Amino acid sequence: MMELADSPQTPAMSKQAFNKQAFNKQEQERFARAALSRLLEPQDSIGLALVRAAGAIDALKIATGRLKAGPQLEQEMTALLSNGGAASSWGGISASLKRWAPRVDDLAPERDLATMKRLGGRMIVPGDPLWPRQLEDLGLQEPLCLWWRGHEDEFPAASSTVALVGSRDSTSYGASVTGDLAHGLGQRGYTIVSGGAYGIDAHAHRGGLSGGAGTMPTIAVMAGGVDRYYPSGNEDLLRAVANQGAVIAEVPPGSAPTRYRFLQRNRIIAALAAVTVVVEARWRSGALNTAHHAESIGRTVAAVPGSIHSANSAGCHRLLRDGGAVCVTDVGEIAELAGPSGTALVSERSTDGADHDGLTLEDLILLDALPLRSASSVEKLSVVAGLSPEAVRAGLGRLGLLGLAVTVGGSWKRARKGA
Amino acid sequence: MMELADSPQTPAMSKQAFNKQAFNKQEQERFARAALSRLLEPQDSIGLALVRAAGAIDALKIATGRLKAGPQLEQEMTALLSNGGAASSWGGISASLKRWAPRVDDLAPERDLATMKRLGGRMIVPGDPLWPRQLEDLGLQEPLCLWWRGHEDEFPAASSTVALVGSRDSTSYGASVTGDLAHGLGQRGYTIVSGGAYGIDAHAHRGGLSGGAGTMPTIAVMAGGVDRYYPSGNEDLLRAVANQGAVIAEVPPGSAPTRYRFLQRNRIIAALAAVTVVVEARWRSGALNTAHHAESIGRTVAAVPGSIHSANSAGCHRLLRDGGAVCVTDVGEIAELAGPSGTALVSERSTDGADHDGLTLEDLILLDALPLRSASSVEKLSVVAGLSPEAVRAGLGRLGLLGLAVTVGGSWKRARKGA
Repeated sequence: MMELADSPQTPAMSKQAFNKQAFNKQEQERFARAALSRLLEPQDSIGLALVRAAGAIDALKIATGRLKAGPQLEQEMTALLSNGGAASSWGGISASLKRWAPRVDDLAPERDLATMKRLGGRMIVPGDPLWPRQLEDLGLQEPLCLWWRGHEDEFPAASSTVALVGSRDSTSYGASVTGDLAHGLGQRGYTIVSGGAYGIDAHAHRGGLSGGAGTMPTIAVMAGGVDRYYPSGNEDLLRAVANQGAVIAEVPPGSAPTRYRFLQRNRIIAALAAVTVVVEARWRSGALNTAHHAESIGRTVAAVPGSIHSANSAGCHRLLRDGGAVCVTDVGEIAELAGPSGTALVSERSTDGADHDGLTLEDLILLDALPLRSASSVEKLSVVAGLSPEAVRAGLGRLGLLGLAVTVGGSWKRARKGA
Repeated sequence: MMELADSPQTPAMSKQAFNKQAFNKQEQERFARAALSRLLEPQDSIGLALVRAAGAIDALKIATGRLKAGPQLEQEMTALLSNGGAASSWGGISASLKRWAPRVDDLAPERDLATMKRLGGRMIVPGDPLWPRQLEDLGLQEPLCLWWRGHEDEFPAASSTVALVGSRDSTSYGASVTGDLAHGLGQRGYTIVSGGAYGIDAHAHRGGLSGGAGTMPTIAVMAGGVDRYYPSGNEDLLRAVANQGAVIAEVPPGSAPTRYRFLQRNRIIAALAAVTVVVEARWRSGALNTAHHAESIGRTVAAVPGSIHSANSAGCHRLLRDGGAVCVTDVGEIAELAGPSGTALVSERSTDGADHDGLTLEDLILLDALPLRSASSVEKLSVVAGLSPEAVRAGLGRLGLLGLAVTVGGSWKRARKGA
């Protein structure tokens, strides 16, 4: 994996630049977050608590050893870490400072921001008008910033966003299902979020692009820096995603997509969308990790069923069996789960009624007793159906009105379908 | 359907025979239930309440007009009907007497019992040692009797019984899945219950017969009389089921399998088994009716997923989506649901662990940072992983012990799989 290791492209930031008084407070905050996003691995709870407690500017100073954390700050962090479900016995900030120290010299927010500008992109932070508000649901685990390559459009709300995820080694079934769902959801105005990988992810982005009716048809959330389109086989696709939608990451340009970052990236995919749909996944699959992230923040998880003979559906069936996921089979069912923003339609099939729905028990029995060919007398029907002659006469009247029974010279038989 | 209408084969019962004092009370009770099972359609709530309140012997007398129901009896019936969830405004027994009257002359319990004897079968009633106790869970809707063709073996408990049901027009997928599941469950000693129809039912019975390790490998519950093997294309199969297991019905010999009786029959299938598994079913399918019966008496409902492109799996997905059914994909998962009687095994796959399960967060990050080819120094790893040099050293020790990292002249790289 060394070939994918983080590769700073230009010398580290100048400390002078960072301290320049020309920066206003807001710019300093952005700058600090840019630097911190390289210093801290995604979901570094202690680092994120430090930012919450001290603000990004002071947090960067503390994390880089230019400011000392007081006991009150550490108390605040302890409270934040307890609320966030992180271990409260974290033992203070000194251990983390040691952990962060090796990267301090590599921090280069100016360079990273310049790289994004050069690529036609930008960086956004919480509070920016374009910041996806639904990420707040991640609580302490909300990303420090997002590095963004693509449209300047407003981020769609969670209720207009569907995450379609699954295995890299998709089958033809998974490919066609993902394409159909993404295209159909795109046509209804939903934004398709996925992870930019081979297999299901790629089909999801393609379907979103082809069906897209909204301003931002699809968004790829990357585990590594957005300066590179990774994996390289998806370069053209990801370029198209960036052109029509967005390619985003919480890690700065030049960051390698490590396995750990893949797993953390999944929480962002889950948080952006109201529904995470796992289309095809093996018994153990990163897509299940995305599903668990979604569940943990109260998002809806759905899974597409498939053949029980397909190992690529075993993960979906596991999600369905364990009770966490809703079984979905078409665009309408997913739209229903996503909520009011989409054109939520009840599945067409549920209005496709059989012609004897709504019959009373007696009329159903009577209908069963009616011969198809030679007509039968009321008395004979009374014996066969086990109903009184009066009840048979009344029932025949009702069935006649419904076009289910016809009379032939005082006797009755069943009406032919469509007759 | 006239060709399938009830066809009494011999003259009606002689009233002398019925009143003969030679019958002891128990025999009279059996005799009365045999007669009532022809008089009343399955699940005739008022008739069943009458039997509960008056006993079968008096119930038959009342239903055939030879005894008058007193007001106290009607009060008791009202209470039973209210408890059973049936309409309490049933307006008294007189309307039902009219309904039953046309069939009184056709009652022939002697003939029906003789027919069963001739076929090597019998009739059983609640309280008989062979009566399936699990049918008591049907409450007021427990059948009056069961007409039985097959082994004299004791009926298996619900926890040893699995109902496998589905559409008549099964696909090759449904056929192979049903056969595999029934065979595998049979091998584990479960009895397979189904409805004797074409398609999924037939594959279920065949699989049960082929895998059967218990004394009663499979049971077919028929909607019509068991004197005929219906449908005729399944005659050989049903004969085999009767030879090794049982073919049963609540309606007497000569009864036609009307649609109404099919629907009522389904409640018996559901009640006999701890789990009802719908293997393949269309959006509207009788199998869903069986599932709803199972749910209504607290039995577990399971469904096998399939391709979303297959209309024959749409009913299964509907059950999964509506939350009533558990997703099952193999014999082990079904056995787990059925309960302690089977050899409940946790699915094999869940023990198939990946080699980095159980690693701490830091070790996972470190593992990601380790190069595959040229080894890396602790200092370099410290920067790439974002961990202190001490933490890297400790982590490398742990990864080394797990065989995940190897050291080459003081530097480290990832161990090759299986090395």
